[in-house]
Amino acid sequence: MSFLKVAEGSDFPIQNLPFGVFSTADNPNHRIGVAIGEQILDLTVVKHLFTGPVLSRKQHVFTQPTLNSFMSLGREAWGEARAVIQRLLSASEPTLRDNKELRKKAFVSQDSATMHLPAEIGDYTDFYSSRQHATNVGIMFRGKDNALMPNWLHLPVGYNGRASSVVVSGTPIRRPMGQMKPDDARDIQKWEYVPLGPFLSKSFGTTISPWVVTMEALLPFVIANPVQDPKPFPYLCSDDPYMFDINLFVSIKGEEMAEKVTICRSNFKNMYWTMKQQLAHHTVNGCNVRPGDLLASGTISGPDPESFGSMLELSWKGTKPIDLGSGHKRTFLQDGDEVILTGFCQGDCYRIGFGECVGKVLLAIQK
Amino acid sequence: MSFLKVAEGSDFPIQNLPFGVFSTADNPNHRIGVAIGEQILDLTVVKHLFTGPVLSRKQHVFTQPTLNSFMSLGREAWGEARAVIQRLLSASEPTLRDNKELRKKAFVSQDSATMHLPAEIGDYTDFYSSRQHATNVGIMFRGKDNALMPNWLHLPVGYNGRASSVVVSGTPIRRPMGQMKPDDARDIQKWEYVPLGPFLSKSFGTTISPWVVTMEALLPFVIANPVQDPKPFPYLCSDDPYMFDINLFVSIKGEEMAEKVTICRSNFKNMYWTMKQQLAHHTVNGCNVRPGDLLASGTISGPDPESFGSMLELSWKGTKPIDLGSGHKRTFLQDGDEVILTGFCQGDCYRIGFGECVGKVLLAIQK
Repeated sequence: MSFLKVAEGSDFPIQNLPFGVFSTADNPNHRIGVAIGEQILDLTVVKHLFTGPVLSRKQHVFTQPTLNSFMSLGREAWGEARAVIQRLLSASEPTLRDNKELRKKAFVSQDSATMHLPAEIGDYTDFYSSRQHATNVGIMFRGKDNALMPNWLHLPVGYNGRASSVVVSGTPIRRPMGQMKPDDARDIQKWEYVPLGPFLSKSFGTTISPWVVTMEALLPFVIANPVQDPKPFPYLCSDDPYMFDINLFVSIKGEEMAEKVTICRSNFKNMYWTMKQQLAHHTVNGCNVRPGDLLASGTISGPDPESFGSMLELSWKGTKPIDLGSGHKRTFLQDGDEVILTGFCQGDCYRIGFGECVGKVLLAIQK
Repeated sequence: MSFLKVAEGSDFPIQNLPFGVFSTADNPNHRIGVAIGEQILDLTVVKHLFTGPVLSRKQHVFTQPTLNSFMSLGREAWGEARAVIQRLLSASEPTLRDNKELRKKAFVSQDSATMHLPAEIGDYTDFYSSRQHATNVGIMFRGKDNALMPNWLHLPVGYNGRASSVVVSGTPIRRPMGQMKPDDARDIQKWEYVPLGPFLSKSFGTTISPWVVTMEALLPFVIANPVQDPKPFPYLCSDDPYMFDINLFVSIKGEEMAEKVTICRSNFKNMYWTMKQQLAHHTVNGCNVRPGDLLASGTISGPDPESFGSMLELSWKGTKPIDLGSGHKRTFLQDGDEVILTGFCQGDCYRIGFGECVGKVLLAIQK
């Protein structure tokens, strides 16, 4: 328990402690903080309290404008930081609790903060690791008999994304211009993607939450790895469970709607390939990965139609309008729609939440 | 003419003046220089001489460890810098010519310098813009009737590459591990690339020359744009000639060979899409491009078999060994092979060269 009040159902109890980068009106410097309830603990103010074996000589990482330096210190440093922060925030620890002046400097209300990208993202990789999603898309575009490509069960298919196009939650996304086929004009990707993969279709906006949830916070929610048949090659085999039970939601709020409506309820455990397998595959060729690099799971669909993770699947290629209630329907996103992605692990009386990913679709530029 | 001696056939006469980043044994700081003959003009030493309207207030860009800040100043600044440097190096200008002490500080022999990546590369894009290359690869993998994909003549096909894997000339390239099909195991790409494009096959090493040749140096070699049929969409149309006559060469030197042997003679003018069209297409969807981003043409093959730009084509999928003389042959690269890429524009008694791209293939890691 923390001495700070944390509302029931908050994304950010003392068991979570995600890292982020924020600024405020009175201090525009980008700086590192940790979310707790509705507050942010400003690590630049308490950096002198990190006195453990690794961090005592590395306190400067907490004065950087991004998390890259802290990330580059590795697992021991991350654990040490988490332990210090958890102690500082706990109900039994007087350092902050009983020092009104320090507390006033150290805490910033999330309401009054502007969040930024948590790291300089050197490279961004997007995987395609939900079997149901790959199967659904395959059925739509190639028919039932060729739904999964022959390589799909042998390696985690992925592609290099566009790092410059990653934005933090809240950034509006302008509808892209580009070439589409006149006959079934949903998208840019279908026309452009042969033979070298998605290009413009995936380079105009990828929204991430400002909060970086640590693996340590997720460990209580680890579950057995998916059964994989055929058995993967040895470099992709590991006995450690590394799949996680994370509830995932997609909601939409059109400009004409009073409230957002949830259109997808999925779960991270619908992944076929684990994050360890993705990273092992990504680097087996010698590819270097740098602190701050972003690896995305790709769309995660479950077996149940309400767990399909994309509007392409939910509307089955635009053939089945999605009912948003009160007479509102969608097949694909309309200008002005706001999309809200959330996720959390449900613990015993607490949640490990990821914060929101929100983006509003703006009208394409008119020529 | 420069007061410095520049050998005939040098890549770096006073008409070229490419920018790069270097360090030396006695000064390990990465710093910006300009190649002239066999020397480098160290811009940190002469930065006070940039007194033009833009650069007089921006001299600090020449003390940065990469070119990104200078690149971000834009075309007017680049032109101003080039004019100053060209004047400083000219035979008629005494500032450097007659100041022995300044000259001693300002020039570094290329032999004694270590070259580095010229910029922090935020994103790396690779195009596929030579029609002959796309046709050759198409014939090999899909047959003559489906050689060019239906989109190819409508847009410059490209994909997002892996910025972390770009290395400067001289860096050895370790042969990648990865999954290949047992039946025709040339490559990683063929198995992995459906449907999302190349991934591990293009993320273990891309070699670039340390020297950034300016568009101003290339302008005398501009030629008419390729005839394009069908006519592209309006956003891809421009009447300005923006194709360039640049001779391109690929050589190989195996460990058993006394000398390198040239296996490909091509030309940049074999591109179907111009650099302007590539950039227009890349950004038509709203994708942001940042100073330092790298855009590659892709393999450039001409109509003549000796101008085919890849060993895949030169050996026609491994079916026709490439003769390197003295009994040496290759279908694909062997461990220990050194690959050397060069290019130059031929002027009237001078060349605008690009420096070398050299990489040696190292044995894959043994498990």
